[in-house]
Amino acid sequence: MQRAQDVLVRQWSQDLIQSWNSNHWIDLPVKVGEQIGRLIGAESGQVICCDSTSVNLFKVLSCALFMQPDRSVVLTQQGNFPTDLYMVQGLSALVGEKRCQLLEAPEHELEQALNSDVAVLMLTQVDFRSGRLLDVQRLTQRAHEQGVLVIVDLAHSAGALPVELDAWQVDFAVGCGYKYLNGGPGAPAFLYAAKRHHANITQPLSGWMGHKTPFSFSPQYVKSDGIEQFLTGTPAVISMSVLDAALGVFSDVSMAQIREKSLALSHCFHQLVQQQTALSELSLMTPLDPAERGSQLAYQHSHAYQLCQALIKRGVIADFRAPDILRLGFTPLYLRYVDLWHAVDILSDIVQSKEYLKPEYAIKQKVT
Amino acid sequence: MQRAQDVLVRQWSQDLIQSWNSNHWIDLPVKVGEQIGRLIGAESGQVICCDSTSVNLFKVLSCALFMQPDRSVVLTQQGNFPTDLYMVQGLSALVGEKRCQLLEAPEHELEQALNSDVAVLMLTQVDFRSGRLLDVQRLTQRAHEQGVLVIVDLAHSAGALPVELDAWQVDFAVGCGYKYLNGGPGAPAFLYAAKRHHANITQPLSGWMGHKTPFSFSPQYVKSDGIEQFLTGTPAVISMSVLDAALGVFSDVSMAQIREKSLALSHCFHQLVQQQTALSELSLMTPLDPAERGSQLAYQHSHAYQLCQALIKRGVIADFRAPDILRLGFTPLYLRYVDLWHAVDILSDIVQSKEYLKPEYAIKQKVT
Repeated sequence: MQRAQDVLVRQWSQDLIQSWNSNHWIDLPVKVGEQIGRLIGAESGQVICCDSTSVNLFKVLSCALFMQPDRSVVLTQQGNFPTDLYMVQGLSALVGEKRCQLLEAPEHELEQALNSDVAVLMLTQVDFRSGRLLDVQRLTQRAHEQGVLVIVDLAHSAGALPVELDAWQVDFAVGCGYKYLNGGPGAPAFLYAAKRHHANITQPLSGWMGHKTPFSFSPQYVKSDGIEQFLTGTPAVISMSVLDAALGVFSDVSMAQIREKSLALSHCFHQLVQQQTALSELSLMTPLDPAERGSQLAYQHSHAYQLCQALIKRGVIADFRAPDILRLGFTPLYLRYVDLWHAVDILSDIVQSKEYLKPEYAIKQKVT
Repeated sequence: MQRAQDVLVRQWSQDLIQSWNSNHWIDLPVKVGEQIGRLIGAESGQVICCDSTSVNLFKVLSCALFMQPDRSVVLTQQGNFPTDLYMVQGLSALVGEKRCQLLEAPEHELEQALNSDVAVLMLTQVDFRSGRLLDVQRLTQRAHEQGVLVIVDLAHSAGALPVELDAWQVDFAVGCGYKYLNGGPGAPAFLYAAKRHHANITQPLSGWMGHKTPFSFSPQYVKSDGIEQFLTGTPAVISMSVLDAALGVFSDVSMAQIREKSLALSHCFHQLVQQQTALSELSLMTPLDPAERGSQLAYQHSHAYQLCQALIKRGVIADFRAPDILRLGFTPLYLRYVDLWHAVDILSDIVQSKEYLKPEYAIKQKVT
């Protein structure tokens, strides 16, 4: 908040365009990228902050496909987050099915679906509905054995649990700034590209900020050598400054500590739920084994939408995911155990009193 | 500023995800698009606020090319803003030269270059260097006579001079929120698509926000019927709210009034320059005829870079454009005549005193 105010009042209103240099606006994508890189196991020079997750996915998908001209399949887990599927569909419509086609397989069949037709394995580490956690390291190894490149969507993992992109040898990754990175509504997203690929790729959204010398205004695009080649337009300074400030909270804590508290919080929450007989209709679909879950719990309930609305009304922030999922995310950096206690109490009260059946909570277009 | 504070303190910190509904975050792209539409002669439902100008250009370029499968040339003015050229180059590399190739022609040869190979005429209405204004209406008419679709980049025109996209029958347009729309550093951009095309196009950056029912989380992309089909990822709420508030200043003024003051300001500025013998080395490259210029003046000077630095140091905001251009933009909504007087005085003083030759103003990488 203070940072946003500084950007608006001092940097924008007083320093004006000088701020591109003096307040380092132009360096923000790299600077914020570096901070995120430390949270996802990426050595310097491989992460950049820009655009939205969807747009960044289009960039890395194009790169990965065009590194493998004899292969066309993008293999992904069934039930992956829709925008991931849609971006492949959009690219496929643009370049044709011979260059790009989407194949969905159930999680447990992904390994056997890897063959010489597959160009890219596109995974979301933590399933947006169930909260199930994939073994990205293992899948990446299997994919590489078949000559398949790996793209990972870290939407529900960056800032929530330890990620080791370099160690796992992941090729590309994307993720958003507005979930566990706390960047605020619609915060800019990020993109990871392993350094070993930087020289061999050209991403198609080749805007001026990705040019080697953007301010020479040369008519021919020449890509930057480093991760900056993934930039497109002018950086979103205000939003990116807010994300930059938000990332500060990670400076004195390790991802192992965050993970430990996250698991403890969610474990505690589920125990509290189990102790309430009123909540016996809630059916947990997230695996309880820590090796198999992210930082969220998903419960199925026939009135999940209404429960979610009633919870929000009473100050407990939950998500509804169609058709019947009540999703609770645990942000270890500021969530306290006492918050869980209150949340379960409220949930129990809503169920027992049938408060969730009030007309005000009836289903209408849901927007997040 | 107050708006940014409200978004951060009340909407984000207190209302949290409820704000997607209660504070209308989800409607911002359309709402802000409508406001911009009124400034560029677009009837309701044809303008949306999202992403960067470069990314939006990629969307409309793809649409326009794929509406014309037998044509592949994207014709544009020589010296167009580099990112416009680069985005065509990127698309061309992705889909192949048989589907997309860039052809640059001098402004006065554009009309005769229109033929049956040309799919798209891509124009920037006001040249970023010279400030020269194109006759978009006439060029659009000539293009349509040859079956060519027209995309206009309004970066230096939206909010600066009257634009009549509907009346001129322009097919698609893009523009940025951070110049004459006053949206602040890296503000989100906008995109115009004429309603007559909405049913016949599919843009390739088909992210979840462009889906007909994004929150049904269906695995198959089905585009929105309206202008929302051009959305990709989650909207940049903080930046877009700032732009939304900034657009409020246009509510009680007409574009004709803005244009009148803009022309008067720039005319006055140039007269003041001409009265200063010290400034005789500045050579105006912008046409003086109001029908041929935008809201900026460009002067050539062998030390343009240094002059620009010295001006900025003394509080006069100018731009340098390689190799030798000093560019001055006139924002009629808040620039006063007395500001011009002071600016020319300072410029004259800098030249006379040779202050601009100080080492601190020597050329280094310039970033805006």
